Amino acid sequence: MSTETLKKPAPAINPKLIAPFVNSVRSVFQTMVKVETTVQMPRLKADPCPSYDVSGIIGFSGDVIGNVVVSLQMAAAKSLVAAFAGMPIEAGTPDFSDAIGELANMIAGGAKKHLGLAASITVPSVIIGRGHQIARLSDVPCIVIPCVTPAGDFAVEVNVKQVNQPAN
Amino acid sequence: MSTETLKKPAPAINPKLIAPFVNSVRSVFQTMVKVETTVQMPRLKADPCPSYDVSGIIGFSGDVIGNVVVSLQMAAAKSLVAAFAGMPIEAGTPDFSDAIGELANMIAGGAKKHLGLAASITVPSVIIGRGHQIARLSDVPCIVIPCVTPAGDFAVEVNVKQVNQPAN
Repeated sequence: MSTETLKKPAPAINPKLIAPFVNSVRSVFQTMVKVETTVQMPRLKADPCPSYDVSGIIGFSGDVIGNVVVSLQMAAAKSLVAAFAGMPIEAGTPDFSDAIGELANMIAGGAKKHLGLAASITVPSVIIGRGHQIARLSDVPCIVIPCVTPAGDFAVEVNVKQVNQPAN
Repeated sequence: MSTETLKKPAPAINPKLIAPFVNSVRSVFQTMVKVETTVQMPRLKADPCPSYDVSGIIGFSGDVIGNVVVSLQMAAAKSLVAAFAGMPIEAGTPDFSDAIGELANMIAGGAKKHLGLAASITVPSVIIGRGHQIARLSDVPCIVIPCVTPAGDFAVEVNVKQVNQPAN
């Protein structure tokens, strides 16, 4: 680990891996959360990366490795969880974390179906902490899908790469 | 999601799933990090859970699902990364995150070998943020393995459950 590695850029991501995530975000927010969501153009993750208050993380293994992270400011998290659950849920309770985890799970699960690759996804991890960052690892490509809703903005980070060619 | 679910206790964890993680933490810190580490008695995760500055998360899927989290205060993270890498590494750089991710990966990978189950592990996610918490999800058991080193304390959280019986 030399200091020279600090300067290396993020690795490129395969655009074919991104479309299923964009489509899944749109579908989940239209049909499950029922909040109007504008999905902006995906872009490379900035360095230093933005900070959030709540994150739900789902890991991928198999032919696609990496993770997908749904990161929200607290105000947006509370509004979206209330819309999703049909009632306000106090932040910091297991129910609140479950709802954030389930949002991440639906986005990752929806995308997985359309990747056309053999991948497993993990149960969610949920992070709560004012102004935390999901660090960029040097060998995992990072794409951010910015999302705008009337309840506040959030971002879906797709940090995945394909390690095997599909069987068909 | 009713308010009654807020009161439900964490589900029980199979003790046989914990020993491989305890042994792996000992082995990684003795042989790779080369820092004297006292592994304390594993205990159920407290609610509300303690907060940390740096966390490395590895997901499990397959016959064991869940995740393992290595959570550190920043002072301990800097000291342990310096011991592991053989030189100080600035916090917030990709090299620092890579080192934290690699620590989590070695602990999860070492434990996976001794679980005797078919499980896949993900690449790490690394969270950096002063005083963040890893939320407790209502259906994932949570055990904390507290670890004490001269460089500062850290904790390994094991949030896993077995979903299939082993083949043999």
